[in-house]
This record gives sequence, C-alpha cells and structure tokens, in this order.
Amino acid sequence: MDRIQALELVRPHLTEHRYIHTLGVETAAAELAHRYGADAYKASIAAIFHDYAKFRPKEEMQEIVKQSDLPKDLLNYGTELLHAPVGALLLEREIGIKDEEILSAVYYHTTGNGSMTLLEKVIFLADYLEPNRQFPGVDEVRELSKVCLNKASLKAVQNTILFLMKQNQRIYPLTLDTYNGLQLEIKGKQ
Amino acid sequence: MDRIQALELVRPHLTEHRYIHTLGVETAAAELAHRYGADAYKASIAAIFHDYAKFRPKEEMQEIVKQSDLPKDLLNYGTELLHAPVGALLLEREIGIKDEEILSAVYYHTTGNGSMTLLEKVIFLADYLEPNRQFPGVDEVRELSKVCLNKASLKAVQNTILFLMKQNQRIYPLTLDTYNGLQLEIKGKQ
Repeated sequence: MDRIQALELVRPHLTEHRYIHTLGVETAAAELAHRYGADAYKASIAAIFHDYAKFRPKEEMQEIVKQSDLPKDLLNYGTELLHAPVGALLLEREIGIKDEEILSAVYYHTTGNGSMTLLEKVIFLADYLEPNRQFPGVDEVRELSKVCLNKASLKAVQNTILFLMKQNQRIYPLTLDTYNGLQLEIKGKQ
Repeated sequence: MDRIQALELVRPHLTEHRYIHTLGVETAAAELAHRYGADAYKASIAAIFHDYAKFRPKEEMQEIVKQSDLPKDLLNYGTELLHAPVGALLLEREIGIKDEEILSAVYYHTTGNGSMTLLEKVIFLADYLEPNRQFPGVDEVRELSKVCLNKASLKAVQNTILFLMKQNQRIYPLTLDTYNGLQLEIKGKQ
C-alpha cells in the first residue's frame, strides 16, 4: 500500500479538520523519522492511520474492548483513550495491516508505554506537535524534538499529565509508565 | 500501649528534627481524626510510629523488601519510598503492633493507594501538612483539610506529582492510583 492508497482509505473515516491534522502528523512524523532514523514508510502509514477509529461511536469502541483481548481497564477511564487501541485492532481487521510496528505505533499514540520503540515515539510525538497544534508548551516540545527524541517525548507526557490534573481527569496508568520509562532512559544515557 | 509508651519506643529511632516532625504529625492527625470521625487512638499510634524505619540503612531496607512479601517493584524507585512499607513490617516484627488499620496507615503514608481508608487518609495528609512543614502549596492544603478530607488529600498528591516531575524523579504507580482513586471518590460524591 502506498501513501496515496492509505490516504484514500482513511479519508472517509475522518472529518475535514481531522484529515488536516492527520496530514500534519504525517509531515511531523516524516521529519522525526528522518532525524532519528526510523523507517520512513512505516512512519508515514502509521501517521496516516493513527486516528482511524477516532469517530467510531463510543459504544462500538467499548463493545470492541469487551469482546477482544484489549485490556479491560480501558473502560474505566476517559473514552478519549479508546480510539488508539481500537484503531490498531480495526486496522488489522478491516484494512488488513499486519505490520506489528505500525500497529503498535497506532495502539500507543495517545498514552505511550514504559518501553517505547523508536516508531512509537515518532508517532506519539508527531501527534503532539504537528504544525496545526497550538497550545501552551507545544513550541518548547517542538524545539526539544530537534535535539532529543526522548526529552521531547518526556516534556510532552509531562504536559499531558499536568493538563489532565488541571482538568481533574483521571490518568491512565500507561501514561505514567511512559513518563517513568522515559526518565529512566534519559538518565541511563547521561 | 498508651501514647507515652509509644513515644518512648519510637524516640531512639528518630533524630531530634524527625521527632519534632512526628509530634506535629500526631497533632495534625488528632485534629483530622476529630474532624472526620477517625479513631483517635489509632490515629495517634499510627502518627507516632509512621517514620519508625526512616533512619534504617538503605541496604537493610532493600534486603527486607527482598526477603519479605513486600512488592519487589519498590526496589526500582527512589529509596525514600522504602521506609513506609518496611516500617509497617518492622512495627509488627519488633514492636508487636498487630492492628491492621494502624499498620496500613503507616504502610501507605508516603504513597497512599487507590482506595484509601479513613485512617490512611488521616495519616497521609497529617504527614503532608503538620505544622512544621513549610513549602509552597501547604497552606492551601491546610485550608482544604478543614473542608474536605478527599479534596485536601487530592491536592496533596497532585502537588507531590508536580514536585516529582519538576525534579525529574520517577513516580511510583501507587501514587498515581491515589490520585485516580481520589478523583473517582470526589466525582462520585458530587
């Protein structure tokens, strides 16, 4: 599948606004992949499909979690979390994507995890800082992303934790794992 | 055991500074127990003994974790975490305290947990806001503690998470459980 085919496949599943965001994530992912040596093709395909399930009805996503091997504790947190793991599952089921690296990059694009692959970091960070994003702190992460993928990812997850706490929202444990894993990785390299 | 006996038992294990802190925790715990209906005696004994293991050598505490049923992931985080669970274990072993409520209040006084008992909250919060404590944010928690035990505990754990992130320290998952559990409890009551 080339990127044009991928874009054609994903477009009916997205709003115009979300499609523009997706193109921004693809551009950001391409830059990060080039800078840090990730596979350019996989970064492009994962970026294009990362929000594939974004507009599925909440009830459909909850049902998919219940009837699959996805972790059941996803049902105890905000429904915003569901589209990433459900998306990875549906991409395999409906689009036939089998590449585990692409699927896991989609799966973890919202939360990250405690020992992220290069491609997972690229998609996680690209989703955070793509050019259409505008919110306090994003420019600092953009600058860091030119210097250190881990430090930029850490700043992104820290900002996310701060944001969720300000909103009095619960925080999914994988998000904390991401923070802890990146701290460990950064300290290990110092 | 009355409080005088408890104070005599704990004093050799603490520095002067830490003994004064302990007396502050006992006073704060007494106030909170009175306000929110916790057992005054248990609050006093748990407060007096909460830092019982504070000055054990790090290696001794790590060895106790390894050779007991305490969770092994305690060894992967800052050693500051060890004295609370190790203290609970040593209080049973060395002092003969058997009361599970007192022991669990000591066990969880640093991290909290996802479904805290009244006494656990009282000791967790008393340790945070006792009169000798002076740091940014403590007065706000003191004011909240006169109105709502859960909201004050939530603010305390939020401040702790913020502090640890600023220090680039890893955060023990139980600390996040405490945050999430309190958010759920507060929302459930609204």
